[in-house]
This record gives sequence, structure tokens and C-alpha cells, in this order.
Amino acid sequence: MSIDERIEGSKNELLEELVELLRMPSISAKAGDAGSFRACAEWVLAKLEEAGAAARLMETDGHPVVYAEIGGADGDGDRTLLSYGHYDVQPPEPLELWESDPFEPEVRGGVLFARGVADDKGDVIARIQALRLYGEEHGPLPFKLKFLIEGEEEIGSPSLPAFVRRNAELLSADACLWEGSMKDDAGRPMIFCGTKGMLYVELRARGASHDLHSMYGGIAPNPAWRLVQALRTIKDENGEITLDGLEELISPPSKEDLEAIENIPFNEAALKASWGVDSFDRNLAGKEVLKEMLLRPTANIAGIQSGYTGPGSKTIVPSEAFVKMDFRLVAGQSPGPVLELLREHLVRRGFEDIEVVDLHGVEAAKTPVNSPVTRQAVETWRDVGAREAVVYPTIGGSGPTSLVATELGIPTIMTGAVANPESRIHAPNESARLDDYFESIGYFARFFERFAS
Amino acid sequence: MSIDERIEGSKNELLEELVELLRMPSISAKAGDAGSFRACAEWVLAKLEEAGAAARLMETDGHPVVYAEIGGADGDGDRTLLSYGHYDVQPPEPLELWESDPFEPEVRGGVLFARGVADDKGDVIARIQALRLYGEEHGPLPFKLKFLIEGEEEIGSPSLPAFVRRNAELLSADACLWEGSMKDDAGRPMIFCGTKGMLYVELRARGASHDLHSMYGGIAPNPAWRLVQALRTIKDENGEITLDGLEELISPPSKEDLEAIENIPFNEAALKASWGVDSFDRNLAGKEVLKEMLLRPTANIAGIQSGYTGPGSKTIVPSEAFVKMDFRLVAGQSPGPVLELLREHLVRRGFEDIEVVDLHGVEAAKTPVNSPVTRQAVETWRDVGAREAVVYPTIGGSGPTSLVATELGIPTIMTGAVANPESRIHAPNESARLDDYFESIGYFARFFERFAS
Repeated sequence: MSIDERIEGSKNELLEELVELLRMPSISAKAGDAGSFRACAEWVLAKLEEAGAAARLMETDGHPVVYAEIGGADGDGDRTLLSYGHYDVQPPEPLELWESDPFEPEVRGGVLFARGVADDKGDVIARIQALRLYGEEHGPLPFKLKFLIEGEEEIGSPSLPAFVRRNAELLSADACLWEGSMKDDAGRPMIFCGTKGMLYVELRARGASHDLHSMYGGIAPNPAWRLVQALRTIKDENGEITLDGLEELISPPSKEDLEAIENIPFNEAALKASWGVDSFDRNLAGKEVLKEMLLRPTANIAGIQSGYTGPGSKTIVPSEAFVKMDFRLVAGQSPGPVLELLREHLVRRGFEDIEVVDLHGVEAAKTPVNSPVTRQAVETWRDVGAREAVVYPTIGGSGPTSLVATELGIPTIMTGAVANPESRIHAPNESARLDDYFESIGYFARFFERFAS
Repeated sequence: MSIDERIEGSKNELLEELVELLRMPSISAKAGDAGSFRACAEWVLAKLEEAGAAARLMETDGHPVVYAEIGGADGDGDRTLLSYGHYDVQPPEPLELWESDPFEPEVRGGVLFARGVADDKGDVIARIQALRLYGEEHGPLPFKLKFLIEGEEEIGSPSLPAFVRRNAELLSADACLWEGSMKDDAGRPMIFCGTKGMLYVELRARGASHDLHSMYGGIAPNPAWRLVQALRTIKDENGEITLDGLEELISPPSKEDLEAIENIPFNEAALKASWGVDSFDRNLAGKEVLKEMLLRPTANIAGIQSGYTGPGSKTIVPSEAFVKMDFRLVAGQSPGPVLELLREHLVRRGFEDIEVVDLHGVEAAKTPVNSPVTRQAVETWRDVGAREAVVYPTIGGSGPTSLVATELGIPTIMTGAVANPESRIHAPNESARLDDYFESIGYFARFFERFAS
């Protein structure tokens, strides 16, 4: 009997297990329901034990981590695979936009709708189920498999850095499968080999102590104009980033990264259509769009506010202005040094008066696109008969991947196929296709088989 | 018996009359109380009739105008003085900041607190009282005095343009005393010989059809950045206005305007202290500050908004951005042509995508600082023993003055002394000093005496 046959023969039970997990509203952003939240962690723990792993809850300053280990000969030389996921979910609001209860999973046309099914509970349970089926098929796992399943991913993983640093030895591994499991719009599995870093800041400018009548518009300091002036030094008139020293920090992309970009199918017209735009920023076109998105830093204005923004024509000189900016960073650019660059850049141009508030920083992380774990992920997709997987040097977004990839030095990728571009992650009517979910169970089981050999 | 003696002997009655007017909540912004609002217009009308004038309510598309005439020999050659004021007031909110009821006038330490006392009811009734006292002292007025007292000034005088154009002949005059009656912080009467024009626009930029994850920050069109780029073409890096063609429209200030500026006492340190700033825009200093405020156009950002402006670090590429701008205009710069300049300026630089929404336009108005009516205003202040009046080429702010000054061609100034810099016009605890109010009655009566001679 093969693992595929085992899946085929137990679809109802596998799905029932997923549904049970999805019914638990483990919303990390909502404090106060620690009891029911913890019940979700304990449920995951029990499933790991059922699959034969030694599992435990490990406390953090926030929600507990589910940690588990299984397999290997208990010798130091065992090959080790680490799996990272999270059992918490985003809040379901706005509720009125859901077509069915976010915590009462419903299948419509082969698609399962529920909060967390695509991010990240489908992925979490598929890996555990794959482990169990592997054991049923092959017996004991000949390598060590570790599970790190946290409960704070959807609130920015505040306890994870300390947890990982405190447990560096416990978490050591030869490769890591990070959460993030996705097919593209043509049904091709996507493999991501890194995440961008990020520096999130607020720039604040101040004028008079109170809003002034705009008869003083020619003589009063205007903080909104001040911000415009400062911002314009960060990008030139063509929209190119001109932050002093930022470019110099970049570790140039590898030949392999550039080749990987060439191999990514990119439907430019479809992306523009989905955004309702005629052109990309700076009229980027073709593979330049992908290179920019995956390999280059950004200087994004996420929000800006000053003065009167209601209807009609109120005439004031505002007293305050602020802009929220996120700089997505690539390998070589740490948020700390970039923050210093930004401060020095502004001071050098006479903007000492603009306050730079550091709101958030994340390191970039990068695993080579030709690393053994990446190659294995690609080959495993061939094993299961999926369309040829597409390897992305990074995912464009950011996350705490560097804790594992950089600090622990573990090659880390995202692979799997639970979600798809219509999955509405973080939004109402989150969904995953049942076929993709079952395929992912088989994929992870086959991944373990390859890792064992 | 002199007029001064008459004022001295009837202070209680004069004040009681003012208090009666202030008790009427003639808030033009609050629709639906047309009855009580109209009662205020009728009260003013009755006072004009009591003073001997032929008064009537004249309907408009909004609140009625109180119009009155008195004096002269009914010949076409009569010298004529027009007085403009308004009987409506600003809403009193926020009520909790008032130390006494806004519509229950209260005297504290020689200062009368009530909504409208400084803007403009004190001024309105002082002129009517001056007319009555003039009659008691001298008998019939040997020139024609016309009163135009509207009820929509505090909502932007929407019906005034049509009213003035429809009644151009009725309103014809040799000079006009506009509302706006003020002493400076050293107790010097201020005479204003003009108002700036204004163009108020909203510039709108659009990106994708919805906010995007900021992982697309390097490739998605960002409307906030787009606005920053567009705005920066309107001012250079030194903060100087660089709107194509704006400068060329300016009618240069007269030698007399420049001389007037030299004669304006200007306490630079006090103004900076009251704003809590260390320097003016572009480090302007000395008389340059006044020249800029009174004689130069502005390009003010009154408000700007895009994307996420709440707490913390939400990472989006906003789908929309807008900025609200008021351009204060000087003689020669009409809002219509300036709007065209702005549109052409943006298109010429490739910003066809930015929508320019015209929200409001007002013409500048200018009466020479050495016109007969200005000279008479200065001399009348000497007559009543006030500190030497200060003549301002303009008031820096804007208003519908051009309807009279430009369209009807009537030399128009603002003079009087009811308000002072502490009067909190439009704000809670609006006030006027009783001494200034009584002095203003005497001033207007003396102004009529001089106009008669």
C-alpha cells in the first residue's frame, strides 16, 4: 500500500481532522480568551503525539509554542529537518462579508472556507498527517524531524526571537520548511528561498504649536511641505531611491538568483489587470518587474497625514505632519544600519527637525536557490506529479525567517500547496481547495521519504 | 453737547442694545432655525429705522440681506458711503470651552464675552449707533449712507455675488467701509486696504483599485509618492513657489504699498513666540516677513492624506492620495487663470493622471493705501485721540471684498476698533473690550462728520 493510497482511503478522516482544528478560534490578536486559545495548542500537541512524536508546550512571554521531535537514532549525527508553522489565525472581521461562519468550515464546490485554512492550519495539519502516514507506511523515521509551531505569527511573532535564541541547540537542523504553502495562478507550486527584511518608520514634522489661519501660509513653517521636501530627497524625480548609502549595502544577487528570475513565469498583463492599473511604477516591464519585487529594496509610503482632510475647503497651516514608511530590505541591508543611514541622510540635508521613529525591524533571510533543500523540494514536486515548481529567490514580503535561516544558519525554504492566489489570506472567505490540501499531505510525506534516503 | 458726551451719557443703553443683539443665536451654518435667524435680521432692520434710515429685508437664495439708506438730498450727485457687515455668527461649539454662555453676554474685567461680539455684531451695531448719535447731534446726514448687512458671511457668502451684481446700482458709492475692525497688540488701530484672493483645490492621485500588500512597494504605482513628486514641482528645494506662470501674473506692489510695509510695526519675536517656532518659513526675517504675508501669493498645503494613518506599522501600498491646497493670490492673479496654470503645469510635467478639483475661488481686492478713504480713516483715528493707526496694504486673508472693490469699483477699506488680537474670533470665549466698543462708536460718528465735510 502506498502513501497515496492511504490518503485516498482516508480522505474523510483527514478532512474531519482539519475541520476540527479550523473550528477552534485561535485568534492571537484577541487577548482574554487564553483558555480556548491554549486548547488549540494542546489539540495540535495531541495530534503530534498521536503521530508518534515527543511533544510539549513551551512557554514564552506570550502564547505557548508547540514543540515536538520524532525519529532518528538519537545520535548527534542524525540528519534533521525543522518544520515551522503557526496555530494562531487572523481575526475574522469584517464578519458580515463571510458567506459562511469563519469558524464553521464549509465546503462549496471542492473549496473549503474557514479562517486559517490557508494560513496556516491546513499546512500545519497536513505536515502532521504526512508524518503519521509515513509511519504507517514505513515505520520509524530514519532522520530527526522537529516541529516548531508558534501561536503569535499573526501578531508579528513578538516572543519568537527570544524563544529561538534561548533554544538554539534544540532547534538545530540541516534544513527548515517554513510556513507558506502556495500554488500560483496556473497551478504551479511556488518555492520561496528567502524573505525581505523590513524597516518600518514614522517621520514626523512639526510646525507651530497649533493650526494657524492660512493667511500665514507664506510665512509659517508648514510641516506637510517639510515632509514633502524631505521625502523627495529619498526618491528622485524618476522615483529611484536615493537614500545615501542604501545601495552600497546590497549584497548583489547571485547568478543563480538571476537565472531563477528568468525561469519564473510572469503574467504581466494579468497582474496589472488585477490591480486595475495601466503600468507599473516607473514603467517597469517584463522581468524587470520581478527583479525589482524580489531582489531590490523598496521605500514605500504606507500612509501620510497632515492638517484638514474632511470635505470642503478649510484654510489652515497644519501644526503637524507624519508619514509612515516601510523599507523592504534585501540581503546585506539590516534594519538597524538602514535606520542610521536614514537619520544621517536627513540630517545631512538639514532635516534635523524631522523626527524618525523606529516602529519595526526585521532582517532579510536568504537560502540559495540551488541549495540541497531547494533542489529536494523541486524534485519532490516532480515525484508527486504536480506541474513543475517555480523557484523564487525571495517572496518579496518579510517575516521572522532570519531567526532560523541566518541566526541558526539553517537553509530555509517555503514549499507546499495548500493555498492559492484566490485563498483570501487575512481576508473574509479565506479558503483552500481540497485537492491542494490532499496533494500537500502527499507532498510532505514524499518529502520525508526523500529526506530519509 | 458733543458726540463723545452723548456716548459717555448713554453707555448703559448702548451696551444694553449690543447685548440684546448678541443674545440672538444667528448661526448661519445651522439650517432649520430660519425663524429665529430672521428675527435677528428684523431686529437690525428696526435699529436702522430707529436711526432714521429707510431699511428693508432683501431676499436672496439664502438668508436675507438687511439693506438701508439714509441722508443726502436724493440727487444723483450725493457723495455716498457704503457700509458692509454681517449679522450672522459662527457656531459656538465646542460649548464646554466657554466660560460663560455664548449667547448670554457677560462682562468680566471690562471685557464682554459672547459669540459674535468681535465678529461682527459689535461692529454692526456700533455703526448704527454712531449714525443715530450723529443725527441727534447734527440733524440730517448731508451725504448718502448705505448699509449692506448680510446673513451668510460665516458660511462663505454664497448668495452675495449674485446679490451685489443684481443690485450694482443700488449699492453704488464713493467709498466702502468693509467689516473687520481691529486693534493690534499694542492698541494701534489697524486699517486694511485689501484682501488676498484664493484658489482652493484638491489634488487627487490614484494607484491600484485597492490597497496592496507592501511587498509590491517597488513595482506598484504609489499615489502618495505620486503626490509628493507633483507637489515638489510646485515649490523648489528652498520652498520658493515654482508654479509656471504664477509670478508673471502678479501686479507689482506700488511704491506706496512698500512704504506702508516699512511703516508697519512688526514684533517678529512676539509672533514667533505665539506660534512656538524658532524661525519663519524659509528663514524669512524682518520686513520680508510682512512683505511675504501681505504682498505675495502662497501655495499652502492645508491637508494631506493617504493610506494607513493609525497606530503601529500596517504595510500597504495605498490606492488613493489627496492633498488640499489653498493658493492665496495677490492683485493680478485671478483664481480661474491660476487654476489653468496649475493644470497646465502638472500636465507639462507628465502628471496628467493627477485630478485637480476646484473647490473654491475668490478674487483679490485692493484699494490704494493713499486713497482718500484710507487717508480719512487715518485722520479720523487722530481726531478721536487713538494711537496712530497702522495702514496695511492687505489683510493677508481673503474675502468677498472684490465684489464691491473691483466689480463695483468702490474704494474699500476695513477700519474700526471693536476687536483685538485676544478676541478669539471663531473660537470659544470670543470677546471685545468695552472701551474699544465705545471708542468705535465715536470713531464711526467722527468718520461720518469728516465724510460730510
